[in-house]
Amino acid sequence: MILEVAVLDVKPNQEKEFEATFGEAQKIISNMQGYVSHQLHKCIEKKNRYILLVNWQTLENHTVGFRESEQYKEWRALLHHFYEPFPEVEHYTSVYSNAL
Amino acid sequence: MILEVAVLDVKPNQEKEFEATFGEAQKIISNMQGYVSHQLHKCIEKKNRYILLVNWQTLENHTVGFRESEQYKEWRALLHHFYEPFPEVEHYTSVYSNAL
Repeated sequence: MILEVAVLDVKPNQEKEFEATFGEAQKIISNMQGYVSHQLHKCIEKKNRYILLVNWQTLENHTVGFRESEQYKEWRALLHHFYEPFPEVEHYTSVYSNAL
Repeated sequence: MILEVAVLDVKPNQEKEFEATFGEAQKIISNMQGYVSHQLHKCIEKKNRYILLVNWQTLENHTVGFRESEQYKEWRALLHHFYEPFPEVEHYTSVYSNAL
């Protein structure tokens, strides 16, 4: 399993709109092949910062299956205009886990 | 519940030693008051990068309870010399979760 990590800096004063829009947009990823689970968290220290964590079965489920899909175009149209700067996305494999 | 997030850049060629040491050090946080769970993940795109995710019951369980403890001195002695640069640690609250 692969963990996608994206730190999302949202344009000032657009946090509420971003959260509402993400609430709709998350249905898109949840229905993609290879999707396992996701979490969106809001930063305490920087009020317009979020972190998105998505578990995928394989790296390609995200980088190819999702990013080259029609659904990604909808995801992008809904969410990308909120971000400044545009986020760097990284992928991780588990080393140790005593997870919830 | 609070999510602690730390992106850890380990000095080149010390990844194996860091992982072995972390395997011991993780027992320290697991026994702290307010600790809930943790995960250590290794980055695919940057081979000496890791991300540590720790769930705490409250922010103060980490920032006061752990960081001002005797156990933190042991944690720091075991792990901090691996990091360059020294990591920025942030705390997050959940907005949406469809977690494992």
